[in-house]
Amino acid sequence: MSKKRVLTGDRPTGPLHLGHYVGSLKNRIELQKTSDQFIMVADAQALTDNAHNPQKVRENVLEVALNYLAVGIDPSLSTLFIQSMIPALPEMTMYFLNLVTWNRLQHNPTVKAEMKQKGYEESCPAGFVVYPVSQASDITAFKAELVPVGEDQLPVIEQTNEIVRHFNATYKTNVLIEAKALIPPIARLPGTDGAAKMGKSLGNCIYLKDSADEIAKKVKGMYTDPKHLRVEDPGNVVDNPVFIYLDAFDPDRVAFEEMKAHYARGGLGDSVVKKRLNEVLQAFLEPIRSRREQFAKDPQSVMQILFQGSLKASEIASHTLQEMKKAMHLDYFN
Amino acid sequence: MSKKRVLTGDRPTGPLHLGHYVGSLKNRIELQKTSDQFIMVADAQALTDNAHNPQKVRENVLEVALNYLAVGIDPSLSTLFIQSMIPALPEMTMYFLNLVTWNRLQHNPTVKAEMKQKGYEESCPAGFVVYPVSQASDITAFKAELVPVGEDQLPVIEQTNEIVRHFNATYKTNVLIEAKALIPPIARLPGTDGAAKMGKSLGNCIYLKDSADEIAKKVKGMYTDPKHLRVEDPGNVVDNPVFIYLDAFDPDRVAFEEMKAHYARGGLGDSVVKKRLNEVLQAFLEPIRSRREQFAKDPQSVMQILFQGSLKASEIASHTLQEMKKAMHLDYFN
Repeated sequence: MSKKRVLTGDRPTGPLHLGHYVGSLKNRIELQKTSDQFIMVADAQALTDNAHNPQKVRENVLEVALNYLAVGIDPSLSTLFIQSMIPALPEMTMYFLNLVTWNRLQHNPTVKAEMKQKGYEESCPAGFVVYPVSQASDITAFKAELVPVGEDQLPVIEQTNEIVRHFNATYKTNVLIEAKALIPPIARLPGTDGAAKMGKSLGNCIYLKDSADEIAKKVKGMYTDPKHLRVEDPGNVVDNPVFIYLDAFDPDRVAFEEMKAHYARGGLGDSVVKKRLNEVLQAFLEPIRSRREQFAKDPQSVMQILFQGSLKASEIASHTLQEMKKAMHLDYFN
Repeated sequence: MSKKRVLTGDRPTGPLHLGHYVGSLKNRIELQKTSDQFIMVADAQALTDNAHNPQKVRENVLEVALNYLAVGIDPSLSTLFIQSMIPALPEMTMYFLNLVTWNRLQHNPTVKAEMKQKGYEESCPAGFVVYPVSQASDITAFKAELVPVGEDQLPVIEQTNEIVRHFNATYKTNVLIEAKALIPPIARLPGTDGAAKMGKSLGNCIYLKDSADEIAKKVKGMYTDPKHLRVEDPGNVVDNPVFIYLDAFDPDRVAFEEMKAHYARGGLGDSVVKKRLNEVLQAFLEPIRSRREQFAKDPQSVMQILFQGSLKASEIASHTLQEMKKAMHLDYFN
């Protein structure tokens, strides 16, 4: 049985944090062993809402790649590539846009929610509204069968598959294939402040590259159970970021369960729990940070990995585009 | 002084007719002597509202090229190329879409008028709404200084120049240049039925490839002045398609002016005027038709002209895209 093709990636808009690790990186490290995984650094997509800050996108391409390598994404198992290096993608997008109605595009729930969140009103860049169609290109160009996404991204997969069916039916072909969403077991970590969403501007993330001191400081400042005023009070372990983080990272499951029960019945202070979380995160992040530092010494080599991956990815995407153009009768000179 | 770059073209959705000749081809034959003219067969744009009929677009690429060559467009003076052969164009479009607001795109007057005309409501293809941004790519990729357009297309040039200014300001560059609209002296011929708009589906066009019999039949059936019932009645020469066509094509200006005056004061029958128009059009179209037939004998050679032109055009467009990407900090591997 041949390996299934997986397409995944990140927008290079900042360093990756523990939320990325739990939500996607961890799964990718597993997936690369059993699937043919393509990981895209989505610089072109990042520009749809960062058009005025291309330098930020540029710098974070290397940053994201360093994070990948640091956590154990292996370029010999996963193909790492840069989206803007794949000219077939925008070309596919333009053909797909002819098969999607204007109305449908405006009513994509994911985009609507994100537009609201970003405070876009009339001033939303057209490129941002169009991005689900670009994502359909990203997915279909590689004939990805599986796409790991959060629940909130399901409409994007749905729209991709709509486009696939519409394209194949219109041009009487089976060139494009439908993709399945792969919802990861743990979708999200909360921020260190307890907020559902993590963000650089919110200052509530622990980054994979954070120093030991930064980690210690952030853990010390973490939000816990505001009603857990005295050590002897029973504490909430469900909505408590410290316990959610411990659940995600503590390798000693027995000790974790004991600590959880103790906190819940009362008698365990926040400082003890935070001390344990700090130990756990220091142990987890130290090797990642040190691998990152190793790779960061030779950025040229990291960029070469992206370059080679982009060549490979571009060849596959170009092949799909050629098949599409043949089906569309646009193969003038073959 | 170096020659000015001109960008022009046609959507390959049908054979070209006398309206195309008067409105654009005639000017191009002149322009190619004094400018560096690029003529685009806009197959990708044609697909924005013909996505379900790609075969029509495909067939008319050769048809349009035959028409060009037949009227005297000279491939050694003008660069003829196929839009879908230029991958830099959709790539540029995706970057431009980030600089245009969704709102602005929806309110382009040209697109709004065309959407209405085509009866698109909610079902308008997104590609169709986006096409003015694609046209901005077509124009700017070649750094065209002049773009021959009808009055109704002025908003497209305006939007292109807005994008140019926005791009250059955002990325602190002067890579892109603004274009000037070149409004041709005679913008439009009416249809043979007197309608302002000519169209294949309206059956009111005389095609450059029409046979002698077809021309004679169409001229005979032309709309004239409905109030000119008897030969001796004074006739309207202003809104009368026969006179408008004679004005556009009769090389004997003295005879034309006499005939016009005679018809206006009365005493000249429609059949006499139509006989003259038939003579004029037969004389005009016969050499065009016979050159078309010559070229049609060797379609491979015609496609080769488009192929060579596309290579040249693609090189220029890619160069512009590289300059753009450098300004956007997306030049990772230079």
